[in-house]
Amino acid sequence: MTELSKMTCEACQAGAPKVSDEELATLMKELPDWAAPVKEGVLQLERVYRFKNFKQAWAFSNKVAEMAEAEFHHPGILLEWGKVTVTWWTHAIGGLHKNDFIMAAKTDALLEE
Amino acid sequence: MTELSKMTCEACQAGAPKVSDEELATLMKELPDWAAPVKEGVLQLERVYRFKNFKQAWAFSNKVAEMAEAEFHHPGILLEWGKVTVTWWTHAIGGLHKNDFIMAAKTDALLEE
Repeated sequence: MTELSKMTCEACQAGAPKVSDEELATLMKELPDWAAPVKEGVLQLERVYRFKNFKQAWAFSNKVAEMAEAEFHHPGILLEWGKVTVTWWTHAIGGLHKNDFIMAAKTDALLEE
Repeated sequence: MTELSKMTCEACQAGAPKVSDEELATLMKELPDWAAPVKEGVLQLERVYRFKNFKQAWAFSNKVAEMAEAEFHHPGILLEWGKVTVTWWTHAIGGLHKNDFIMAAKTDALLEE
């Protein structure tokens, strides 16, 4: 478990800082399984988790949804057979805030539960 | 509720027939809220459902997942804040089988529950 996963999200609204290019490079090193694609002009964090069947993927997607609601920061959770794709970004700033990296690390930690 | 939503999926495997262009046109008329995009070369059925908040969207996505597991035909279910995007297609034939239209209609019916 990385340090990131132990941190807490701070309140985030329009005007909050996006991560700088330098921060991005550093933070991505802590999340080796995550990619940072640009989708519809918005930089996001994305990871595909694979499972043996639909039920296991479904259970994981519900864990992620539960955490998202608890932290009140909501990702995209794409549930398919044997596969969950989680995407984090901060809608209010149209990009990545440090919160998103914290949530990505917390998502990885859910897998180990 | 359309007739489609009352039908049952038949077993579907490689070699099962894709819907013809004529069938597609007829079936799409029964599903006015669905689009038929081609994604990565595969014709799919897709609908975006909107909700007031994350919890309502989450609850609906779980209803869809429950039905999918019961029928053993699994869609893509993308859960985001206030929004669920459901995508049906038949992996085994790389396109749309009549089953997908039945499942799409059943998904719409879940909304009315």
